[in-house]
Amino acid sequence: MAELDRYLVEQRERFEDELCELLRIASVSTDGQHAAEIRQAGEWVAAQLRGLGLATELIDTSGNPVVYAQSAPVAGAPVVLVYGHYDVQPPDPLGEWISPPFEPTRRNGNLYARGATDDKGQMLTHIKSAEAWIRTVGRLPVQLKFLIEGEEEVGSRGVTDLIGQEAERLACDVVVISDSCQFGPGQPAITYGLKGLAYFELRLTGPRQDLHSGTFGGAVTNPANGLTRMLASLINDVGRVQVPGFYDDVVPLSDRERQQFASLPFDESVFMQRLGVQGLAGEQGYTTLERRWARPTFDINGIWGGYQGAGSKTVLPARAGAKFSFRLVPDQDPDKIRRALREHLEPLCPPGIQMELIDMHGARGIVVPLDSPFMQAAATAIEQGFGRPPVFIREGGSIPIVNVFHELLGVDTLLLGWGQDDDNTHSPNEKFSLADFHRGIRTSAHLWHALGKIEVEQRA
Amino acid sequence: MAELDRYLVEQRERFEDELCELLRIASVSTDGQHAAEIRQAGEWVAAQLRGLGLATELIDTSGNPVVYAQSAPVAGAPVVLVYGHYDVQPPDPLGEWISPPFEPTRRNGNLYARGATDDKGQMLTHIKSAEAWIRTVGRLPVQLKFLIEGEEEVGSRGVTDLIGQEAERLACDVVVISDSCQFGPGQPAITYGLKGLAYFELRLTGPRQDLHSGTFGGAVTNPANGLTRMLASLINDVGRVQVPGFYDDVVPLSDRERQQFASLPFDESVFMQRLGVQGLAGEQGYTTLERRWARPTFDINGIWGGYQGAGSKTVLPARAGAKFSFRLVPDQDPDKIRRALREHLEPLCPPGIQMELIDMHGARGIVVPLDSPFMQAAATAIEQGFGRPPVFIREGGSIPIVNVFHELLGVDTLLLGWGQDDDNTHSPNEKFSLADFHRGIRTSAHLWHALGKIEVEQRA
Repeated sequence: MAELDRYLVEQRERFEDELCELLRIASVSTDGQHAAEIRQAGEWVAAQLRGLGLATELIDTSGNPVVYAQSAPVAGAPVVLVYGHYDVQPPDPLGEWISPPFEPTRRNGNLYARGATDDKGQMLTHIKSAEAWIRTVGRLPVQLKFLIEGEEEVGSRGVTDLIGQEAERLACDVVVISDSCQFGPGQPAITYGLKGLAYFELRLTGPRQDLHSGTFGGAVTNPANGLTRMLASLINDVGRVQVPGFYDDVVPLSDRERQQFASLPFDESVFMQRLGVQGLAGEQGYTTLERRWARPTFDINGIWGGYQGAGSKTVLPARAGAKFSFRLVPDQDPDKIRRALREHLEPLCPPGIQMELIDMHGARGIVVPLDSPFMQAAATAIEQGFGRPPVFIREGGSIPIVNVFHELLGVDTLLLGWGQDDDNTHSPNEKFSLADFHRGIRTSAHLWHALGKIEVEQRA
Repeated sequence: MAELDRYLVEQRERFEDELCELLRIASVSTDGQHAAEIRQAGEWVAAQLRGLGLATELIDTSGNPVVYAQSAPVAGAPVVLVYGHYDVQPPDPLGEWISPPFEPTRRNGNLYARGATDDKGQMLTHIKSAEAWIRTVGRLPVQLKFLIEGEEEVGSRGVTDLIGQEAERLACDVVVISDSCQFGPGQPAITYGLKGLAYFELRLTGPRQDLHSGTFGGAVTNPANGLTRMLASLINDVGRVQVPGFYDDVVPLSDRERQQFASLPFDESVFMQRLGVQGLAGEQGYTTLERRWARPTFDINGIWGGYQGAGSKTVLPARAGAKFSFRLVPDQDPDKIRRALREHLEPLCPPGIQMELIDMHGARGIVVPLDSPFMQAAATAIEQGFGRPPVFIREGGSIPIVNVFHELLGVDTLLLGWGQDDDNTHSPNEKFSLADFHRGIRTSAHLWHALGKIEVEQRA
């Protein structure tokens, strides 16, 4: 590994220059106005992988093209699928950028550009680590399969279809994704758990049209009154969801996890200050990190009904509705929760109101076992690359592609984020620390090494 | 009265023609675009009253001009103030009118035009009845004071200021307003009770900006969650308001009122069909009419927060809010209820949320004693004019000007509506039955007669 590490140091400037090349391509996927740049970015990534001698294709999908490349099989060693994306968020509002979004600019050790951290910079670390192996050792210690898509920012439709169709070709032992954050500056992390989601829309319909609240109030049921009653019934005043059976399948936090979370340098007052709130609340009996990462939650995401303008209007609304969601943890089943929710809500729907409950989205929570050999290999590699062992964290959000890999390929994902939570992903002045870029490449190179030592059964 | 009744029959066609003249003036007050027509309509009304020999002025106010006219004092007889308005709602949506809104058109015994019933047609009945007295008897049996304003549809600011400034000049024993409905076709009514109102806006503010509901849910309090909990706490599942002390000052329905309401031909199934609802609900222990007319109620008038667009967005909203109101009955005090509401809500506001409770509007409920001599006179007049005695009803809405007369002049108001509830006030194809127009004039003429018989103390 010494020769390899030396190569990485020697090539630093070129690696940065190449990242800048990719960042200059405005491969925005959200508006349908950048098809040419989308293809150009896909071709740029494909050319990088082809240049390493990997069998490489730019695959047309139902959505944007997907770059697929694979290295030679390595007998007895794992097959590792690297997922990333070359598309980016739009740069708006343009006026707030200090340097133009598609002219990568170095300032204070960071590289500023749209896509710098999300995900061009993080994704490229795995290509550059492969290059280092191939240019120094001559071969990779594991078989790598690169799957780099171009519509992550708009729902990953094409790549999801492709994974379903090409499950055999994409077969692997583990997936690696770098598209997230460290725990904090100087403290790398492995995200080993993601929450699932059960997202609903509730629509209540009362009278044919808005009515005068004086003439009809007290006689005709008000859908907005009914809505608040039904939604308030879903959670009690100590933050416990009241849908019967909701907690039945929840895997409790282990003592080890609770100790680990408690040992993290998480400062509630800094957290509150950053968000602009005077207090925190949630399920009684759990710390803030436990609630954010490992306990199921309930949130109203949107609510509407009646008059929302200035002043007062004495209307009894004809309709009211809300979008709301439960974040789930293993082993909660979104289908089971949907059924229990409907059974809970239906008897609460008052006379004169028609209720429509729409199931918008369901996904299970995921936890990668902490004692998996892949997890251990990742921890070792991070310690090599960052000079400090990672902390193990969970995340309250969902990453749908991780569920896709779990469900369609039957494999776990290592979420190894090189970013920082102030990198302004999706905002003006997106940045990526150049030091973290190089640490990420070095970690990735060590990851292939550590994963290569894991013995796996030969595939049929 | 025989000569007077004959006069009314002879002049029917001219009365209708004159109403059409007034209806051709597009005196829309809501948009500020019709100042010329507003003044023209005010001048038309003033000319009518001046033509009867009344001392008449078009008074400029802080808002639109007010027509004021008064006849000679009649010793020992009451002073009666007739209130009405010459402004109208906008005609939109124009495309839905069968005949143009400002070209009055007769169809099926009705006159179709914007303002036909609200309030030009109803208001004019009192001018024409005065005309009949003056042209036949030569004088009025009571002193009439006409106060006809031009911004009722936008809040009556100018006339309210004027009443405050000119309380002495406007001093009277009773107010008469015809700007409402009969109980049903062929069944005239006197509205003897109006509800009051306590209208609020509740704004809850959480984090500085919308947050990701996965990353922050369960830790940061969701203002929309808090809002539904706080609003749901205001009323229980049998329709009882839960604000402490809310019912303390409620004057209960008398047995006589309950019997009267019960004897009215009110068909719940027709009512439900018309509104398009499958059921009715409200405070337990009261009939639908009792709840609508004489029991306090709680309605959410508007509610908002978070994402209201299509699809799903996993956001924890920074803000949520609602407009809501209580309809009050005598002797509930809106100020007392506001204080009790604040005391009730404040402890329910969860940690991390800032609560702002805005008092938008307060008015007391009003009931005119059924045994008042003015009420009896009105009943007698209606029986003469409509050939059928009125029923006595209450109304769930508020009419702010009635409170103004009560508070600033210390007098009760007789609400004598000649309209029907399908007259499309505020909607396309507004109409007024021509038979009811003439019955209204006749009733009004008999009302001056009946009121003239009431002995009142001489004013200082």
